[in-house]
Amino acid sequence: MDIIRTISDLRAWRKTAGRLALVPTMGNLHEGHLALVHEAKKRAERVVVSIFVNRIQFGQGEDFDSYPRTFEADRARLEQAGVDALFLPDERELYPRIRQDYNVEPPHIQNELCGAFRPGHFRGVATVVSKLFNIVQPDVACFGKKDFQQLHVIKSMVEDLNIPVEIVPVDTGRADDGLALSSRNGYLSAAERAEAPRLQRELARIRDSLIDGDNDYAGLEQAARATLEQHGWQVDYVEIRQADTLELAHAGEKRLVVLAAARQGKTRLIDNIEIHR
Amino acid sequence: MDIIRTISDLRAWRKTAGRLALVPTMGNLHEGHLALVHEAKKRAERVVVSIFVNRIQFGQGEDFDSYPRTFEADRARLEQAGVDALFLPDERELYPRIRQDYNVEPPHIQNELCGAFRPGHFRGVATVVSKLFNIVQPDVACFGKKDFQQLHVIKSMVEDLNIPVEIVPVDTGRADDGLALSSRNGYLSAAERAEAPRLQRELARIRDSLIDGDNDYAGLEQAARATLEQHGWQVDYVEIRQADTLELAHAGEKRLVVLAAARQGKTRLIDNIEIHR
Repeated sequence: MDIIRTISDLRAWRKTAGRLALVPTMGNLHEGHLALVHEAKKRAERVVVSIFVNRIQFGQGEDFDSYPRTFEADRARLEQAGVDALFLPDERELYPRIRQDYNVEPPHIQNELCGAFRPGHFRGVATVVSKLFNIVQPDVACFGKKDFQQLHVIKSMVEDLNIPVEIVPVDTGRADDGLALSSRNGYLSAAERAEAPRLQRELARIRDSLIDGDNDYAGLEQAARATLEQHGWQVDYVEIRQADTLELAHAGEKRLVVLAAARQGKTRLIDNIEIHR
Repeated sequence: MDIIRTISDLRAWRKTAGRLALVPTMGNLHEGHLALVHEAKKRAERVVVSIFVNRIQFGQGEDFDSYPRTFEADRARLEQAGVDALFLPDERELYPRIRQDYNVEPPHIQNELCGAFRPGHFRGVATVVSKLFNIVQPDVACFGKKDFQQLHVIKSMVEDLNIPVEIVPVDTGRADDGLALSSRNGYLSAAERAEAPRLQRELARIRDSLIDGDNDYAGLEQAARATLEQHGWQVDYVEIRQADTLELAHAGEKRLVVLAAARQGKTRLIDNIEIHR
């Protein structure tokens, strides 16, 4: 596996790569990331994984400084997974002026759901993904459904700005008890870890009610929130939305997604579940 | 010359084009545009010119509706100039949802100089140029220095978002009396046309003073403004700026640009002059 640290080296490598798939990550890789790599390998001749903890998508008081950096373990996993190149730029390489002056500004959805609790997050995501696409020029890029709103923003951005990259969504990896795999799971204490799968169970409960024809979205959201709060969660949101647009859903809508973000102690977890009823 | 109206046809054509130069225009082509084509031909195997009057860079009350559309004359000129392809998308092709949801947002410079008088203009320019670059994927693109602030925004955007396109600035084409060539010159009455070269003459007068070592930027700006107003101009701005950054210039600065925008009747003219002293 080639380890590439500069944009100019990456561009030189890219010229020889043929059909190329990109898996953008922030490192601290788990089985969910390896599922992205696995999908990427099916879609292209070569696979490049990027590891970059992107400061501009973290807000004030968020975990940018403490975000786990586990380079040696990540490298070993990617090598074993058959990745062709690891793109590992430092901050100066992607942000030579420190600040980013030109940003890709998403529409109002950037201020809803997770965006309501993380101002500027989706602008930072859209901007760094644009930069990575411009640098790597992949034919295809794989993103996990665990970050459902992120996936929506990236798919919409690619369409709206005519970016010549195919976006491939990949199903969320889960632990045996249903907890969505996430780098932030490592922050959980043993007790918090034992409690964490309740988030997914509450979403599944809403799914079952929706499939049974329940259209009282506000009631379902409120019930899940109450259950989580009774079990010590601080709930940012539980929302039922239209699955393709992420807009508010009408009663009777057939394609839905239930999204939630809630905190166990200092750890913020997110999850979602899609419903075609 | 191939005439291409859809993104998918353009992308198919691009695959066969080799090293490619793009000249983005809004049509109503004059000798200034042909100078861009001439430069483009030196830089690449193939040249594609786009003609698209981009609604999102026009403000309320600006001349989007009346902007001259002269397709047959434009086609003949481009054919004669040896252009390989003309990209001619309609509005629905570039803005299928009518509105543009994801925009490239430039920094504060978008609200200065011309931006102070045309809110949203440079966002619209940056966004459509990003889209055209993503669609055409040129190796190089040519822009005129007449739109100096536009050129600055595009060069900075390309650098900041790592867009893999080389930007080539091309000198302003001028009439024999010094008036910068512009599609909007066609709006001028005979009397206004006779007066129009004064804009360039006032910029040249400032240049001469700067080269003589004058550092009273505000005084020079004010004198030019007063002269233009005495001759019936409505002056938006006359400003001396640092040439590379477009920031305010310090006394003694060696690389300067003087920029102006002023109206003769309903016609807004812009011009600029670079100084290395």
